[in-house]
Amino acid sequence: MNHIVAVEQFERLWVEQLFVEAERMRSVFRAEPVLPRYILATLFYEPSTRTRLSFESAMLRLGGQVISTENAREFSSAIKGESVEDTVRIIAGYADAIVIRHHEQGAAMRAAAVSPVPIINGGDGPGEHPTQALLDFYTIWSELGQLDDLTVALVGDLRFGRAARSLALLFRLTQRSELIFVSPEAVPMGADVRRALDAAGVRYRDERDLGKALAVSDVVYQTRIQKERFATQDEYRQARGIYTIDRQSLDLLPARAIIMHPLPRVDEIAPEVDADPRAAYFRQARNGVYVRMALLAQLLAPSNG
Amino acid sequence: MNHIVAVEQFERLWVEQLFVEAERMRSVFRAEPVLPRYILATLFYEPSTRTRLSFESAMLRLGGQVISTENAREFSSAIKGESVEDTVRIIAGYADAIVIRHHEQGAAMRAAAVSPVPIINGGDGPGEHPTQALLDFYTIWSELGQLDDLTVALVGDLRFGRAARSLALLFRLTQRSELIFVSPEAVPMGADVRRALDAAGVRYRDERDLGKALAVSDVVYQTRIQKERFATQDEYRQARGIYTIDRQSLDLLPARAIIMHPLPRVDEIAPEVDADPRAAYFRQARNGVYVRMALLAQLLAPSNG
Amino acid sequence: MNHIVAVEQFERLWVEQLFVEAERMRSVFRAEPVLPRYILATLFYEPSTRTRLSFESAMLRLGGQVISTENAREFSSAIKGESVEDTVRIIAGYADAIVIRHHEQGAAMRAAAVSPVPIINGGDGPGEHPTQALLDFYTIWSELGQLDDLTVALVGDLRFGRAARSLALLFRLTQRSELIFVSPEAVPMGADVRRALDAAGVRYRDERDLGKALAVSDVVYQTRIQKERFATQDEYRQARGIYTIDRQSLDLLPARAIIMHPLPRVDEIAPEVDADPRAAYFRQARNGVYVRMALLAQLLAPSNG
Repeated sequence: MNHIVAVEQFERLWVEQLFVEAERMRSVFRAEPVLPRYILATLFYEPSTRTRLSFESAMLRLGGQVISTENAREFSSAIKGESVEDTVRIIAGYADAIVIRHHEQGAAMRAAAVSPVPIINGGDGPGEHPTQALLDFYTIWSELGQLDDLTVALVGDLRFGRAARSLALLFRLTQRSELIFVSPEAVPMGADVRRALDAAGVRYRDERDLGKALAVSDVVYQTRIQKERFATQDEYRQARGIYTIDRQSLDLLPARAIIMHPLPRVDEIAPEVDADPRAAYFRQARNGVYVRMALLAQLLAPSNG
Repeated sequence: MNHIVAVEQFERLWVEQLFVEAERMRSVFRAEPVLPRYILATLFYEPSTRTRLSFESAMLRLGGQVISTENAREFSSAIKGESVEDTVRIIAGYADAIVIRHHEQGAAMRAAAVSPVPIINGGDGPGEHPTQALLDFYTIWSELGQLDDLTVALVGDLRFGRAARSLALLFRLTQRSELIFVSPEAVPMGADVRRALDAAGVRYRDERDLGKALAVSDVVYQTRIQKERFATQDEYRQARGIYTIDRQSLDLLPARAIIMHPLPRVDEIAPEVDADPRAAYFRQARNGVYVRMALLAQLLAPSNG
Repeated sequence: MNHIVAVEQFERLWVEQLFVEAERMRSVFRAEPVLPRYILATLFYEPSTRTRLSFESAMLRLGGQVISTENAREFSSAIKGESVEDTVRIIAGYADAIVIRHHEQGAAMRAAAVSPVPIINGGDGPGEHPTQALLDFYTIWSELGQLDDLTVALVGDLRFGRAARSLALLFRLTQRSELIFVSPEAVPMGADVRRALDAAGVRYRDERDLGKALAVSDVVYQTRIQKERFATQDEYRQARGIYTIDRQSLDLLPARAIIMHPLPRVDEIAPEVDADPRAAYFRQARNGVYVRMALLAQLLAPSNG
């Protein structure tokens, strides 16, 4: 595997091996400088500080280095008419791997098609964000010790929420899972994801009552309702208020369950939840570094070359 | 000491030990990579290139690494409604220490309250900028060999000038000092600082005649008059012209005195002053690196852990 | 040589020695960390991600480190009235060398006049961009094995195109060269460059027929027609369409010739040309790293100090 573009390319065995390596990265953290003077380019056409800093931290922990731009739009197509392909060919001359973040779906795939160095999709518009999906999946594996036989409630904006969509698709790699979709009416899980789950034999159902979903879930994956998705301020406020997780929710949730969130959150998880050991979202954010360390080491380390 | 938030937290002994260490950093400069693959995050909600680059240089000289954002506003409260607390919790998963610069007073304190890694306040709006105060204080110690028995003229905007205010407060750690406040009428030293000096037994007085202040000073701390502080263009022009340091000022100044300035300057120090050995402001800027090296080593180096 | 400000300062012997070193850098790439904890500051008053990332990659490959700003305008003259000279004096306290990119011609020279550390001009408005010229010249040397006895067609905007102008001037260091200027009428090669070539005895001529120029050239240096240089949209469209290189051009071009371009391109070289071995422009971009590695090592490495 040379490029990381879409969750569709992941296989169960590869994922598990990556997670074992990520677990090792967590334990050693900055122990082995396996990528001395290797350079990762973070080529961001739109800012995403969280994704960028997580990748940069991972690369630096491995003993590598980083070159970075959040202004890729300013020196490319938009301004001077340069194609993503040309830009990637040039940056590939400066770096050993490229994380690309782009506002257009398919940009990462186009980059991968011409790049002599590994391309990692750091989010391409409404498309994919495969390393977010990996770190979410890793968090489940790491917190619960299993990927199969799980009941997972996906909550919030399931229509536009890229993270929830990608995680749902990853469950095609599991056995005997059940997904519960808990979303405001305006933003249900898309038919494309449902079809993909059907084809893979993954069970799923919609549930309007968050409490009922909480009571039977091993994982609650809460997401943010994004204002800009709604036609009117009123619809937004309505959708936003429906499914929030607070102290009362904790009483309903099984003792060994975990609460996840791709972050940032607004008010869909109350701060009072943070101290509960089941609140896994800050650990989840931190897991991004371990998973990306494992990924970069696999793509770049000489022994793997 | 785990967080560096306010000058109020500094004690004389700690400061002197830090300065000895900073002096050692000056002499070795890049001799010992004591922080290999340690990561400093510079989390800037408003740009302050000088402060950021000085911290980054310090971290890199120590063998550490840096992840950086000047766009923190774009991925936080302002845009998506995330709190500073949440952002800091996440970045703390990526880095071993965080320098935070924020437009709101108290932000650094809020960050420190939730952060599992050391927080360093890189300026919080009209609040504090404690490492600027430390490097100023270090410059006096380094240039003059003493912190006590000094007469210090603070010149310019003493009302809004954060640097002059913080430096004045640091003189509470000294003996037998006298502060002379030389400011346009519109921007005098605040009553809060005066009260704090009173409580600590530090002598101070106002002086309208810069020449008289120069003649008796060991340290002249000049500051910039900021246009945006004045109601009318006219008031600004008037205030700005009153207290400038030029070749004539040098004749009045004692031979062993030094001239400092937090920089940037506009025209409050004439370029003709730069070549005078008493012009310490560029050395002062450079001292920021040594002081921050000492600080980062103390907060992070394993032997101090 | 302490500062790299203008192509005028380069001599043939120095250039050839630099190219030999660049060739060595290409072969070892990241083999020797000769600049441990040395810091390069990229001080950009306007964004130029390509130039910045190329320098940063070079410094990191050498084992050095980088501090960086694309916001230099925000903390300098424009905003607070600080001079370039003061800014450079301060940054020189944080870094061992400075690459400066500025919108005003002469800014790099002013920086060099006050800087205690090496200044490298990364482009100063309509002025110079000497390392671009060096990497272009190196590409010719590396691809063709010679700098003398070459026929070089410079194509496109020769009036405002800084890269083509600087490259032309570098041919004063060669013997028996001929330059062919192929430009739309509105943007001919300037009289100043022609005079300099005359004084150095370099032959040149204008040619309206690109095909005729291609047929006799060893090097075709294509450049972008910049929209903003033209009074009307119509004139631009006309100028832009005249000289493009496509599959048909390849038939006219000698077998050992190379096609260069400072990039980015828009449509002045058709993508169908990319796969031809004579298309050297992506190799040319990559050469920037080797040339800058050689330059930084020469300016900074202790053994050369």
